[in-house]
Amino acid sequence: MSKKIMILPGDGIGPEIVEQALAVLSAADSKFGLDLEFSEGLIGGAAIDEYGEPLTDATLEAARQCDAVLLGAVGGPKWDKVEPKIRPEKGLLKIRSGLGLYANLRPAILYPQLAEASSLKPEVVSGLDILIVRELTGGIYFGEPRGIRTLDNGEKQGFNTYVYKESEIERIARTAFEAARKRNGKLCSVDKSNVLEVTVLWREVLDRLAPEYPDVELSHMLVDNAAMQLVREPKQFDVMVTGNMFGDILSDAAAMLTGSIGMLPSASLNESGFGLYEPCHGSAPDIAGQGIANPLATILSAAMMLRYSLNGGKAADAIEAAVSKVLDEGLRTADINTDGCKKVSTAEMGAAVVAAF
Amino acid sequence: MSKKIMILPGDGIGPEIVEQALAVLSAADSKFGLDLEFSEGLIGGAAIDEYGEPLTDATLEAARQCDAVLLGAVGGPKWDKVEPKIRPEKGLLKIRSGLGLYANLRPAILYPQLAEASSLKPEVVSGLDILIVRELTGGIYFGEPRGIRTLDNGEKQGFNTYVYKESEIERIARTAFEAARKRNGKLCSVDKSNVLEVTVLWREVLDRLAPEYPDVELSHMLVDNAAMQLVREPKQFDVMVTGNMFGDILSDAAAMLTGSIGMLPSASLNESGFGLYEPCHGSAPDIAGQGIANPLATILSAAMMLRYSLNGGKAADAIEAAVSKVLDEGLRTADINTDGCKKVSTAEMGAAVVAAF
Ligand SMILES: CC(C)[C@H](C(=O)O)[C@@H](O)C(=O)O
Ligand SMILES: CC(C)[C@H](C(=O)O)[C@@H](O)C(=O)O
Repeated sequence: MSKKIMILPGDGIGPEIVEQALAVLSAADSKFGLDLEFSEGLIGGAAIDEYGEPLTDATLEAARQCDAVLLGAVGGPKWDKVEPKIRPEKGLLKIRSGLGLYANLRPAILYPQLAEASSLKPEVVSGLDILIVRELTGGIYFGEPRGIRTLDNGEKQGFNTYVYKESEIERIARTAFEAARKRNGKLCSVDKSNVLEVTVLWREVLDRLAPEYPDVELSHMLVDNAAMQLVREPKQFDVMVTGNMFGDILSDAAAMLTGSIGMLPSASLNESGFGLYEPCHGSAPDIAGQGIANPLATILSAAMMLRYSLNGGKAADAIEAAVSKVLDEGLRTADINTDGCKKVSTAEMGAAVVAAF
Repeated sequence: MSKKIMILPGDGIGPEIVEQALAVLSAADSKFGLDLEFSEGLIGGAAIDEYGEPLTDATLEAARQCDAVLLGAVGGPKWDKVEPKIRPEKGLLKIRSGLGLYANLRPAILYPQLAEASSLKPEVVSGLDILIVRELTGGIYFGEPRGIRTLDNGEKQGFNTYVYKESEIERIARTAFEAARKRNGKLCSVDKSNVLEVTVLWREVLDRLAPEYPDVELSHMLVDNAAMQLVREPKQFDVMVTGNMFGDILSDAAAMLTGSIGMLPSASLNESGFGLYEPCHGSAPDIAGQGIANPLATILSAAMMLRYSLNGGKAADAIEAAVSKVLDEGLRTADINTDGCKKVSTAEMGAAVVAAF
């Protein structure tokens, strides 16, 4: 039976990098007989331009009928002035929430070939391999009530609600415990339980589940300390699990430790293993259309997609090996280029990965 | 007229480091005729042990009658099991809120003598000098409603409220604009306005005030990007301003960029310039009582106190020069020690600063 993949290129460099990932997926399809079937949809600014909203219900429905979604990136200055309710990012939030993609997996891996790109000392980051598990459909991103109201004295007040219930915490915690079990058995849960009640409950649930995973060593860390420890000694971490907002901040900080955020894929999964895959980086409107963006994070997202949602572990391995090979050969897009390497375009990088198969 | 200083040593290494700061303040007093008068109180775990609560109303009242407060640090494993409502940290939150100390100034400065201590490459951090202005008496730290409730289906739900009104944003924004004006004229406001309404209002207020500070260049950055940029290229920042929660996270990350959080002071000010001064680091219970803690952040906090709240700019300059001198001489407490330097105790470091006057 064919496997249906929905492609959502999005905005900025999205279309360019997704094009290369598609070329790689097609090559993988031919070689491994994966029987992939692609359809395409609009999200973000592209959808606003076409339909007046960043993700239509029809596109959401179409995505739901697929086996996985590959997304580029959304947003750009063109839509900075649109009504907050229909901003490009709302499309992303709608698809995450609409498809129940609560488990966001964000690896921060330093490719040995790119060790120099990091702003940290080599000894601090060499061999870095952290997985951040971020809750993606709850917390303050979706909490109600929210808005801006006018107080009796005439001044405005903005408010949002940070809320989690036990079942939401439990399912993301299980994702994280299981990921830790398959890695080095260490799980660090990040909260602000010395101030926020919602994270007191978070910590309680993690502690309650811990005995079910005796092979995993659970620790807790306050979010301010976690931000410090990521800078100080990131290799102390294996898997980190946290809520939506803290996960947004910490996963970006962790990604930047590698110095090559253009290399980092991510997966957002629901209960049944259905997933949306996208690069960790954004839509980089400043370099869109120039053909210089790094397609590797999207290509690696495609590999993650094959592995987690499409039962294509071997093809995923082959893609990852091909990426490693082009790096070994010294090919670099502008963002990761250093002296002595060969600077290539988006398309050249994609073609090189296909050729390295 | 004498200047009244309330000393709150707190827990862990608090008493040891405050003792050294007091020695330095006394030396400054003799030399500059500051006419300082000290009183002492309990906060945090020390207050829980004595009074059953982390800050009594009487201590708060006594602090209010003073011209400034010098605090060590609060918290420790001994009080991890106390009722959440009376945890040591609540003492800190109570004094911040009770005295209206809304403006938290957290410099992240790399001392050239300690450049090696950073986990970042020297070229990325050398000369680093950022000021983070954090709102300290509002936001999600104090927002209501908050708590843990039981839902109809029997499961628990935790919730907190992230809330700011215009006047709260305006006063901290003014503090930040004015600080930027006295420094390099660049202010970066950090929010999550693509998701959180409360920070949409935050951004609006900053934009509304900007024309009043034409000499300051205001920019906005999303918090996830700010966390990345602090790691990637921290020297792009001059002053950053943000809310309580984001400020907690970013100021710790920024402090850790220097590799020597044991060196960083902080000030928390109210409308009238009254302030509480404390080191950026915590109570370090693991090394408490061993006489090895670094007293310099507290000594530098005392200098900030003289400058901002006690009209003692010259004495502050002298303290800072003395600290610089002992670093030049190669004296180091364990946390900042490197090859070729002289490792000293807490008391030796304090005495050296006094001697360097
Ligand atoms: C675009 C934005 C809404 C999004 C988020 O905050 O989740 C992005 O930063 C991310 O991390 O995927
Ligand atoms: C102890 C804690 C409540 C406090 C805070 O979160 O504000 C601390 O982390 C700080 O930054 O001063």
